[in-house]
Amino acid sequence: MLSIGDDAAAIRQRPGCLLLLSCDALIEGIHFELKSTSAKDLGWKALAVNLSDIAAMGGEPLCVTISIGLPPETPPGFTASFYRGLSEIATKHGVAVVGGDTCSSPKNLFIDVTILGEVKARKMLTRAGARPGDELYVTGTLGESAIGLELLKTRGKISQDYKHFVKRHQKPTPRLAIGKFLSSHGLATAMIDISDGLSTDLHHLCEQSNVGAVVEEFKIPLPRLTSGLKGLLSKPLIDYALNGGEDYELLFAVPPKKTHLIPSQIDGIAIHEVGKVTGRREICYIMRDNRKRRLYAGGFDHFSSS
Amino acid sequence: MLSIGDDAAAIRQRPGCLLLLSCDALIEGIHFELKSTSAKDLGWKALAVNLSDIAAMGGEPLCVTISIGLPPETPPGFTASFYRGLSEIATKHGVAVVGGDTCSSPKNLFIDVTILGEVKARKMLTRAGARPGDELYVTGTLGESAIGLELLKTRGKISQDYKHFVKRHQKPTPRLAIGKFLSSHGLATAMIDISDGLSTDLHHLCEQSNVGAVVEEFKIPLPRLTSGLKGLLSKPLIDYALNGGEDYELLFAVPPKKTHLIPSQIDGIAIHEVGKVTGRREICYIMRDNRKRRLYAGGFDHFSSS
Repeated sequence: MLSIGDDAAAIRQRPGCLLLLSCDALIEGIHFELKSTSAKDLGWKALAVNLSDIAAMGGEPLCVTISIGLPPETPPGFTASFYRGLSEIATKHGVAVVGGDTCSSPKNLFIDVTILGEVKARKMLTRAGARPGDELYVTGTLGESAIGLELLKTRGKISQDYKHFVKRHQKPTPRLAIGKFLSSHGLATAMIDISDGLSTDLHHLCEQSNVGAVVEEFKIPLPRLTSGLKGLLSKPLIDYALNGGEDYELLFAVPPKKTHLIPSQIDGIAIHEVGKVTGRREICYIMRDNRKRRLYAGGFDHFSSS
Repeated sequence: MLSIGDDAAAIRQRPGCLLLLSCDALIEGIHFELKSTSAKDLGWKALAVNLSDIAAMGGEPLCVTISIGLPPETPPGFTASFYRGLSEIATKHGVAVVGGDTCSSPKNLFIDVTILGEVKARKMLTRAGARPGDELYVTGTLGESAIGLELLKTRGKISQDYKHFVKRHQKPTPRLAIGKFLSSHGLATAMIDISDGLSTDLHHLCEQSNVGAVVEEFKIPLPRLTSGLKGLLSKPLIDYALNGGEDYELLFAVPPKKTHLIPSQIDGIAIHEVGKVTGRREICYIMRDNRKRRLYAGGFDHFSSS
């Protein structure tokens, strides 16, 4: 494996494996603000959101390239801290940084990470493959990142009370171990990571699988809030969980005969059944108190991403 | 091969081949100005500069991912024209666009392309490997792109007289066929693409190969200029060739016993011998009229790139 310092990085190929390639950009003023995010957390997040894409395919990450555009007013030490945060999560997951392009940017900082991963050819999980009757599961709790972002924007100084939510926004944890567990045991028929919000990503999965879905509202894992914190939020809790985005949890479908094999948690991360796949192509519903409402893709969708 | 629409693209691996991974960013206000570049040419160039990195390894391109950040004032139709230009060169070289991240950018347009290529493991050419006594070659002519850029900046309207130079800047041609010819026939010991200017990239090659070099000034292939055009330039012609940058030609080293196998041109692109590799580690000279001067890395170096 040849690394930084040549025109391209060279990587050995493994027979029987598929390569996975994905990229995600973070742009100052759109995805983050430097005044509320540390360079180190930003380095972590830049890689974490890409690792999450590999997790969603049931794959293992191999290496990344990083393009970064630095505006003239970039604080000294930014790059070093950024790479410290990035190295922290890279080391944790055995990912090598094999190349990059550092250039100046006239105004806004931007970061683009491209990740290369691999997965055994017959074990790969895609968004397509869910079948009517499959049960839908999500990992972790939903909405915490969006709550953290709102608190950051409206409150400024971070209190102990909501530190956890801000951290969930600024330092998300890719669910690689869960993704790999599901793919290697052949438990899921389709999987996606929840980056645009449950409602939007459920539609992405249904679209690719040519199915519909019914989600039970009471089953959606919501964060626990102190009553003081609840008073600070502008929307009902369920809105953050459905439409908040940037959870980087996994949403996956499991055939009925395999649901008993889904553990209630993996590495301390809870796994919850939240609904069912139906045959009504691309039409999703949400059930509350036995009443069925149409569920539309309401999460933010930064134009398009893959 | 799974394409856009999932969390990552999946690519089949081939035994005996190495994967090549490289990325290059283009930023508005740094690498291009929208008022002087068409969206279509920009799409072409965004991929061309990445293809050039694969050419420099003697490899073949497979697929790319593209991250693009669009400011609010992006002209309507920009994205469609950009992708038309990109598709044109992608189709020419059989490259698939397998993923991307399109997002908004507050101020400047940015484009980051990551390319995946491959090369037979034993045929790969890197910057390391040049040995004292090897002869140095370059493809094409040097300095045209830098001349084109200067004319664009100082003249505005493009006259027929210097259209060719502007085109060389805005629509560079990656030397994939030459790179592959050299690698598949085992003719070169080291290779690099000239993106930062001959003087800088010669140093990059010498650094990685632990060698030095002597270049003969009169052998450097310079563009032919009309006397009218010559009068418009701010510097001697040789300066553009040595330090101009963005030529995207190839610089490579050939052992003396193989120099007779180097054709004088491939696909209409001339190949010129320009000097010799020496044992004086990382020290480069340029000869003019039998006088030897130190040659320093004087090309622009946008911080670092690989």
